Amino acid sequence: MATPAKVSKPDGKNNHDAADEQADKEQQEAIEQIDEVQNEIDKLNENASEEILKVEQKYNTLRQPYFKKRSDLIAKIPNFWVTAFVNHPQVSALLNEDDEEALQYLTKVEVQEFEDIKSGYRINFHFDSNPYFSNEMLTKEFHLNDSGDPSSQSTPIKWKEGKDLTKKGNDNKGKKRSHDDQESFFSWFGDHGDAGADELGEVIKDDIWPNPLQYYLASEIDEETGGDGVEEDDLDDEGNYEDEEEPEDEVEEEGEGDEDEEEEEG
Amino acid sequence: MATPAKVSKPDGKNNHDAADEQADKEQQEAIEQIDEVQNEIDKLNENASEEILKVEQKYNTLRQPYFKKRSDLIAKIPNFWVTAFVNHPQVSALLNEDDEEALQYLTKVEVQEFEDIKSGYRINFHFDSNPYFSNEMLTKEFHLNDSGDPSSQSTPIKWKEGKDLTKKGNDNKGKKRSHDDQESFFSWFGDHGDAGADELGEVIKDDIWPNPLQYYLASEIDEETGGDGVEEDDLDDEGNYEDEEEPEDEVEEEGEGDEDEEEEEG
Repeated sequence: MATPAKVSKPDGKNNHDAADEQADKEQQEAIEQIDEVQNEIDKLNENASEEILKVEQKYNTLRQPYFKKRSDLIAKIPNFWVTAFVNHPQVSALLNEDDEEALQYLTKVEVQEFEDIKSGYRINFHFDSNPYFSNEMLTKEFHLNDSGDPSSQSTPIKWKEGKDLTKKGNDNKGKKRSHDDQESFFSWFGDHGDAGADELGEVIKDDIWPNPLQYYLASEIDEETGGDGVEEDDLDDEGNYEDEEEPEDEVEEEGEGDEDEEEEEG
Repeated sequence: MATPAKVSKPDGKNNHDAADEQADKEQQEAIEQIDEVQNEIDKLNENASEEILKVEQKYNTLRQPYFKKRSDLIAKIPNFWVTAFVNHPQVSALLNEDDEEALQYLTKVEVQEFEDIKSGYRINFHFDSNPYFSNEMLTKEFHLNDSGDPSSQSTPIKWKEGKDLTKKGNDNKGKKRSHDDQESFFSWFGDHGDAGADELGEVIKDDIWPNPLQYYLASEIDEETGGDGVEEDDLDDEGNYEDEEEPEDEVEEEGEGDEDEEEEEG
């Protein structure tokens, strides 16, 4: 409908044909010139992306000493990471009871974004010696492979005899949280099915790693029943106190992605 | 489960209690120190955001002369914008036949991102004098209002007698594309219901505006049936030519969001 028709007219109005052809030619030239301008715009966009990447890399470097200091402090707090994970709604959903026991030996988590941030990231999980596996560190790494497709790699877990949590019906006592068929958190290490959008990897990198303390603390608020802090959950829709004594759900809504929320420190 | 219990023990093991208290105190101190480190990390994140915003603003300014030049060139091509809109799958779905006629008078589109990009954008639609309305320009603007919520504002359209395309059963011939109840594109100007995620606004800003030529050109490929260009749509899943003579769907998949795709220029 909208583009100029390019059929030649059968009658002999040569002047008009010539004018049409001239118009066609001018439009074709305009299109070519738009294409050139567009190339310039595309180049600017590429330059902008590169500069933004450099800023991100600079701050990535500047943040490292603080991450190091934070890791050292976290190491002083028993069960910090398992508590943060249990208090994160999405991660908690991936943990069965055995996982929670094994994760009590998790002493340090590190998220490393690669120099070219676009090319991926790695998460290191450091463990104390434990009854489940002999690795001191489990790693999962996400990057683009040689053909440019997202892929992931991970440490094979050296399970101790009868302790493989990724196998159902193993020697473990079989006490699962609520679903008997709850897959193990540790299965994630061997799952390379969706490396381009690994949900757990991205939650740890983008949600927990930027501020793990908020998830650790969410549990304290949880468990100190009778404390004097007022939580939103204690108020009903009109802002009045609800008269309920029942324990709250294990999965808290409040911690979900709300990084600006101020935390109570007990 | 994981946080230290803070109940006092009833029996008299004073030494052990003292050790517990000391551990509690150290953990509490560690938490406070993590909080301080976290504040430093948060400050770095804010600085990074500010620097990235500055880079975006710089390139926003650098792109302006190219956008101006592109607009001047586009003005030489009749029906450029209506063609680009018709060839964009999501926008096309919002156009009825009357809209397409009215949009033939659309001579210039401008997307302006505000100085603080986070605070919004404006789209200007310039029209030649036309039988539908007397405005020379229609504008829709998106920004955060004083309370920080997304809001939008737009130009009231001065419809000519009996030409209001947003009213059903008006004087127009009532020829609608396929759905008789297809709402008008122009209703969008008066719709401020979802200013935080206005679909059409974002498609124009993020998908068409970065490269309108690709959508304009998609139509030429479309209409020059019998041309020698090979399109993906001509190939079946195994990459062989499909033997079908039926007209293709009006909504093309190929243009959708694929900015890297190279265009044939007919």
